[in-house]
Amino acid sequence: MTQQIATNVHWHHGEITREDRNRLLNQKGATLWFTGLSGSGKSTIAVALESKLYEMGKISYRLDGDNIRLGINKNLGFSAEDRTENIRRIGEIAKLFVDTGVFALSSFISPYRADRDNVRKLHEDSGFRFVEIFVDCPLDEAEKRDPKGLYKKARAGEIKNFTGIDDPYEAPAKAEVHLVTSEMSLEEEVQTIIDYLENEGLLSA
Amino acid sequence: MTQQIATNVHWHHGEITREDRNRLLNQKGATLWFTGLSGSGKSTIAVALESKLYEMGKISYRLDGDNIRLGINKNLGFSAEDRTENIRRIGEIAKLFVDTGVFALSSFISPYRADRDNVRKLHEDSGFRFVEIFVDCPLDEAEKRDPKGLYKKARAGEIKNFTGIDDPYEAPAKAEVHLVTSEMSLEEEVQTIIDYLENEGLLSA
Repeated sequence: MTQQIATNVHWHHGEITREDRNRLLNQKGATLWFTGLSGSGKSTIAVALESKLYEMGKISYRLDGDNIRLGINKNLGFSAEDRTENIRRIGEIAKLFVDTGVFALSSFISPYRADRDNVRKLHEDSGFRFVEIFVDCPLDEAEKRDPKGLYKKARAGEIKNFTGIDDPYEAPAKAEVHLVTSEMSLEEEVQTIIDYLENEGLLSA
Repeated sequence: MTQQIATNVHWHHGEITREDRNRLLNQKGATLWFTGLSGSGKSTIAVALESKLYEMGKISYRLDGDNIRLGINKNLGFSAEDRTENIRRIGEIAKLFVDTGVFALSSFISPYRADRDNVRKLHEDSGFRFVEIFVDCPLDEAEKRDPKGLYKKARAGEIKNFTGIDDPYEAPAKAEVHLVTSEMSLEEEVQTIIDYLENEGLLSA
């Protein structure tokens, strides 16, 4: 029988590393963690950023309610415990993407500082880049937009524990990128993030 | 205030799709799901395949005990319920990688047919490729290798519910790739998988 555990075949030069993958993709994978109120524009910015990165030949992937809450986290509800587990799992998944060399664009309200800091620690303890992006939109403006009609329902008491209404939003103290939505166009917001990534050397390997 | 929801800026041409990402990476993302006994060679083959794909300029990522059991699934044990949840989560994560355009190489024993079929369904219902790779190594050979000394512990009763000893391994009935380890070298095993991917058109976009 041919020995299976052989490691001396010419093309098997050991395990491919994160640096190898970064080189292949010519970028340095990182988690871009959007946080902000419902209606602040997180997803809109993430979609536009994804498009911009794509035009630059960079690969990113958006983690959002559609592919997370309906997928891996479909067995989680909205209790405090489940919200924390929701963010923990998203953080762990984002980390796998960073390890792959991909930009993980996470757009969840993620209102609690402790949860976000846990995800940051999870990354930084492994030498992985975590970029917190604060989408800073005042409550009255987000509520005025109310793209999904959720504030209206929360005000009517049809949704409980809604961030900004009857549950707190804890703003980041020192986000890497701070987007003040009242002063910036979408294009400016995206460019601010791109500039950050460029300055940090993440757009090449 | 500048309207944030604007979608008519020139570079924002809507959401980037899975097909777009496949084009960027020049491959079609797919889950390559290795299944087989402990010691059958799943991880060895996955490592060698990853290396081969890398040399071909293709991006893949291995999901294994190190980055899953110690990460997102660290709150799961080895009860029947937790094993099923373990495989479900891995399947959901693999699906996100496929959506990104990456080859997800999953190497877990995954002994139960129902669990594997659930992951297959999860993929195929969304039009995602699921490639089951049966690493077919006889129990006596796997036990003779016993690279981690686990069979010895299982025989001594120190590990309970060990696949092949006191828990069943349900072999796939119709895996896309069937590797008979007693008849193939590691290089042949890898080449068999590469040939499959090539024939299925997954190595270009």
